[in-house]
Amino acid sequence: MRQLLFQVAYAGTAYHGFQVQKNALSVAEVFQDAVEQVFGRREDIVGCSRTDTGVHANRYYIGCKTDHTIPAKQAVRALNFYLPQDIAVLDAAEVPLSFHPRYHAQKKRYLYRIWCSPVQNPFLLRYAYWYHHSVDLPAMQRAAEHMLGTHDFAAFCSAGCDVKDTVRRMDEITLTQDGALLTFSVTGNGFLYHMVRIMVGTLLFVSEGKIAPDEIPAILHSGNRRRAGKTAPAEGLFLDEVFYQEKGGLPYVK
Amino acid sequence: MRQLLFQVAYAGTAYHGFQVQKNALSVAEVFQDAVEQVFGRREDIVGCSRTDTGVHANRYYIGCKTDHTIPAKQAVRALNFYLPQDIAVLDAAEVPLSFHPRYHAQKKRYLYRIWCSPVQNPFLLRYAYWYHHSVDLPAMQRAAEHMLGTHDFAAFCSAGCDVKDTVRRMDEITLTQDGALLTFSVTGNGFLYHMVRIMVGTLLFVSEGKIAPDEIPAILHSGNRRRAGKTAPAEGLFLDEVFYQEKGGLPYVK
Repeated sequence: MRQLLFQVAYAGTAYHGFQVQKNALSVAEVFQDAVEQVFGRREDIVGCSRTDTGVHANRYYIGCKTDHTIPAKQAVRALNFYLPQDIAVLDAAEVPLSFHPRYHAQKKRYLYRIWCSPVQNPFLLRYAYWYHHSVDLPAMQRAAEHMLGTHDFAAFCSAGCDVKDTVRRMDEITLTQDGALLTFSVTGNGFLYHMVRIMVGTLLFVSEGKIAPDEIPAILHSGNRRRAGKTAPAEGLFLDEVFYQEKGGLPYVK
Repeated sequence: MRQLLFQVAYAGTAYHGFQVQKNALSVAEVFQDAVEQVFGRREDIVGCSRTDTGVHANRYYIGCKTDHTIPAKQAVRALNFYLPQDIAVLDAAEVPLSFHPRYHAQKKRYLYRIWCSPVQNPFLLRYAYWYHHSVDLPAMQRAAEHMLGTHDFAAFCSAGCDVKDTVRRMDEITLTQDGALLTFSVTGNGFLYHMVRIMVGTLLFVSEGKIAPDEIPAILHSGNRRRAGKTAPAEGLFLDEVFYQEKGGLPYVK
């Protein structure tokens, strides 16, 4: 038995998230279909993160334990042959059987893209949230700074969040604007259910004057979901990178 | 009677080009549907260019003569309300009745995007040509320089090209690479049927060693379509800008 770790990118529009679900198509199910074609067996796979319906991934990691002896790079080509074009395997490496794509993630980076214009961008329909308005970037940046560091993010967690410890550490948050396209980037050691989308929704409330930038510490302190902003829609969210303890390009490459 | 000129962007994937066709959905037909909703009459419209099935436009210009008195900026909002999300009106202005969006175009710029990687990019499926291989950029650049200036481009025109004068002037051609994404940009005073896509297909033949960079002048001179490369697929092509004699932002703004 060995474990292969696949680096994957996917456009999430057609999928009900990564995790296998009843009566809904998931990335995991489609990936397992391809694995079954290549490996001759429907091997179990483990993803690095639960992503929601319509959320995208620039980089996603999938572990697959198998007895098959196919070289990792050959598995990349073979899987891409069977996968639909909205899921691409970028790379693969052999990792120890003890490696876990989710538990061993040290940090993750998410991007959230917002198209800030009264006029839609026909090329970003599924790949950004169309916000219709311009934003108050300095106010949003001031608010975002309060989210940096270690905080209890219970107020930034949707109902259905079942973890006990809601403390997370945010190492980097940036907001950059390129014309009407605003990109929010956040790197942290972990994220609660809907956390990034609630952070973005809250920053948009700040832009709209519904929340003052310096109210963020009090909202964090309250632990009250209702004091934060709306959950921003899925189509703007990208899992951009997962950081493991690296050896070479992919984590734990032998 | 007055004429409104609309600046439009559209993702061409769902459309059989701009021009109205029998039994196939066109951008013009969908635009006229919206015009009919807003103006209460199915006014005639004139586009700046015939674009093929699946070709995109970052900027496209549509003239519409009407007796309706709606202010130009208000027409933008109203049309966007009725248009599908893959067609967006960016701006509008009143222009003289004598203005013609196609005949009065002095130059056009096209972009052609190529994804040069054995692995597909799930986010560029419909917005770039997936070429599968890396390219010989210096060879392509050397070949492209021979296309600059005034030439008879008969060898770069598909069957079905019905113009008599096949001489055109190319003012700017650049090839730029950003990771695996190669962008070909060309600005000229006019383009023959499929001309940009044949230019790109020819440059890819140069990259593959099937045509030498310095063979381009002889191919141009031959006027023989069969000596040039293949017609590159539609999904990589964007009409990027049309240049008119400008007054203010939009051409001929009163």
